[in-house]
Amino acid sequence: MDVISVIRTKRDRGELSEAQIDWVVDAYTRGAVADEQMSALAMAILLNGMTRGEIARWTAAMIASGERMDFSSLSRPTADKHSTGGVGDKITLPLAPLVAACGAAVPQLSGRGLGHTGGTLDKLEAVPGWRASLSNAELMDVLDSTGAVICAAGDGLAPADKKLYALRDVTGTVEAIPLIASSIMSKKIAEGTGSLVLDVKCGSGAFMKNAADARELAETMVGLGTDHGVRTVALLTDMSTPLGLTAGNALEVRESVEVLAGGGPADVVELTLALAREMLDGAGLTDADPAKALADGSAMDVWRRMIAAQGGDPDADLPVARETHVVTAPRDGVLTRLDAYDIGVAAWRLGAGRARKEDPVQAGAGVELHAKPGEPVRAGQPLLTLHTDTPDRFAYALESVEGSYDIEETGGLMARPIVLDRVAAG
Amino acid sequence: MDVISVIRTKRDRGELSEAQIDWVVDAYTRGAVADEQMSALAMAILLNGMTRGEIARWTAAMIASGERMDFSSLSRPTADKHSTGGVGDKITLPLAPLVAACGAAVPQLSGRGLGHTGGTLDKLEAVPGWRASLSNAELMDVLDSTGAVICAAGDGLAPADKKLYALRDVTGTVEAIPLIASSIMSKKIAEGTGSLVLDVKCGSGAFMKNAADARELAETMVGLGTDHGVRTVALLTDMSTPLGLTAGNALEVRESVEVLAGGGPADVVELTLALAREMLDGAGLTDADPAKALADGSAMDVWRRMIAAQGGDPDADLPVARETHVVTAPRDGVLTRLDAYDIGVAAWRLGAGRARKEDPVQAGAGVELHAKPGEPVRAGQPLLTLHTDTPDRFAYALESVEGSYDIEETGGLMARPIVLDRVAAG
Repeated sequence: MDVISVIRTKRDRGELSEAQIDWVVDAYTRGAVADEQMSALAMAILLNGMTRGEIARWTAAMIASGERMDFSSLSRPTADKHSTGGVGDKITLPLAPLVAACGAAVPQLSGRGLGHTGGTLDKLEAVPGWRASLSNAELMDVLDSTGAVICAAGDGLAPADKKLYALRDVTGTVEAIPLIASSIMSKKIAEGTGSLVLDVKCGSGAFMKNAADARELAETMVGLGTDHGVRTVALLTDMSTPLGLTAGNALEVRESVEVLAGGGPADVVELTLALAREMLDGAGLTDADPAKALADGSAMDVWRRMIAAQGGDPDADLPVARETHVVTAPRDGVLTRLDAYDIGVAAWRLGAGRARKEDPVQAGAGVELHAKPGEPVRAGQPLLTLHTDTPDRFAYALESVEGSYDIEETGGLMARPIVLDRVAAG
Repeated sequence: MDVISVIRTKRDRGELSEAQIDWVVDAYTRGAVADEQMSALAMAILLNGMTRGEIARWTAAMIASGERMDFSSLSRPTADKHSTGGVGDKITLPLAPLVAACGAAVPQLSGRGLGHTGGTLDKLEAVPGWRASLSNAELMDVLDSTGAVICAAGDGLAPADKKLYALRDVTGTVEAIPLIASSIMSKKIAEGTGSLVLDVKCGSGAFMKNAADARELAETMVGLGTDHGVRTVALLTDMSTPLGLTAGNALEVRESVEVLAGGGPADVVELTLALAREMLDGAGLTDADPAKALADGSAMDVWRRMIAAQGGDPDADLPVARETHVVTAPRDGVLTRLDAYDIGVAAWRLGAGRARKEDPVQAGAGVELHAKPGEPVRAGQPLLTLHTDTPDRFAYALESVEGSYDIEETGGLMARPIVLDRVAAG
């Protein structure tokens, strides 16, 4: 087997054999295939695509590159969720304890933000004392005792994906649906969950800007999960405007706690409940009532225990940014657009995100929204509040805020639903 | 300027700006763009192509990465030839002294063989004492005193090309017409010749297997030369069967000397004269008579002086391989096919070529042909003689010889001409 013949096969629009895929993924993980060879192959995959069979084998090869976790010793059925990433997407925070409160075990191995999208671990690290890194034994302990755990994925899961993802990030080959799908699903399958719900975001603040790409990605991932014996369903959800009223780490934790307390913005509550119902269905807990678990405080109880089990103080005050800047509405009218990407970039520039993987984030930084698309606004009314510890960042963030919204004299209510569609195994 | 935006532009089928091309070629040469980034870009160029404007700018950027030679101090007009490489293609050896004998200066900066195609420098190194590496001053001395010089290109010419060529070789991105054309032409233009004739090979033993690709490559290179003020013409020539009756280093030198002595195989003589006429036309020497210069020994005189000027002994016996193996015709009939690629691979396996750049070659190894397509053969008659110093290679070489020829009971003469077409500036 030689790498040039593998590259040429895909370059010339051929189908890679199972032996070629197994060999190249393993050889790359071992270092026998060089970065410059894998990046040429990744570009050929991006431009020429892969069949469903190739994607399935590629995913299996990435799973085989590392360890697999096993939750079969737990008494509860497992349910997991993955979001492709968006702006203000704090759903994992209320969702994991909510689904645990309804009887499932929720092992939520999560990531950090990069670029304009936030990361679940960055958000939870705003809680004083909370730590993201657990050993496999600690993970099982927290999961067993509280029903839910949110922590960093260990280095042992799909190391081929870890190496390939870092390479794609610097070679312009991130946006390949076969590689995105196999990256997400290899990690999720290696984690050993019994059922999985995918939240595939679609819109300006998402990775997939249009519905056709989002649907193709969703169908590919549902197929991969199903082929590997994981009950998998995807919801296509709107990411044209930020979720909820906050984008930023501590700001989003605060909003999540409001949802767990039975309040919170309507869109966050709606999406949390929709995903919870799918997860509970996947886990076979069809009689569970997540709305009740939010209302009666049982989800909040799990949250408090889960945070405490990882060293966090659920009663501690959350960090607050040192400086704020309020953007007011320039005129009366209806807010007809508030762009997710622009707000995500503004939050990132304020310090909520990082430019490079090794950068720290500001816990208090971010953007607070005072109106959502479809709502009337008055001239001079606060539209957005920007939060940061480093006020010299306001000007740079305001450049992104500048064109982020439209206010029109009249405008019907924006009736765009949160959940756009549902994709299940065919 | 950042490399990911450059890669994305080409990946998404856009046109690279002049600033993007200048920046990325320079940054790659300096090491600021990594190999894995350039290989992703090379794959995107291979699959999505380049406009004529992009290829011209890319070529100019590669020329600008190094020094340019200047032959304007010579009293004679300069003429150069480049072949895209084939099997048994020893034409440079008789051609350079022949064109010099007719009044031009021929600075022939040449390369080594890689894979199944031979290299001019490897062939001449079969001449005892001859050396390929000259300083720029030595090169000018030999050229001035004899009219022709064949030597290795210095490291100062188009270093960007040197680095990119080595990368393409290991990443499956060799076969991109924009990159092939800019690689060849950046070196030829940096060499400073006034006129250039391109021998673009077409057929199984060539890089370009079909006429459409060969024509596209020829037209691209003629356009590049013309745009840079070099009078450039291309001949498309047949490489479906080996040129002449030998493939291998010393074997080809011997055949070249036969041509210079007024003999030699008809196809080698025909192509040598056709290329000589084009070179002399390009140099403005339209009255020259190359056939006469072959017949009257003046080309042979230049050859002897040129070889001697680089330390070689034109009267020395050439190396002979220690072992030979004769392949005989299995039946009576007409030889209707003798495949250039298969014979090239056989010669390479016998030791005439190298697997890796740093490998040595055997001077005596190669394949001798006893019949050419279109000729009648008798059962038991020698068809090929294989030469090597290492007889354990015979079996491996014979695998390639096995399917290399067809003998049919009847068959018209193969009337395929050597020169298939001519491409000049439009």
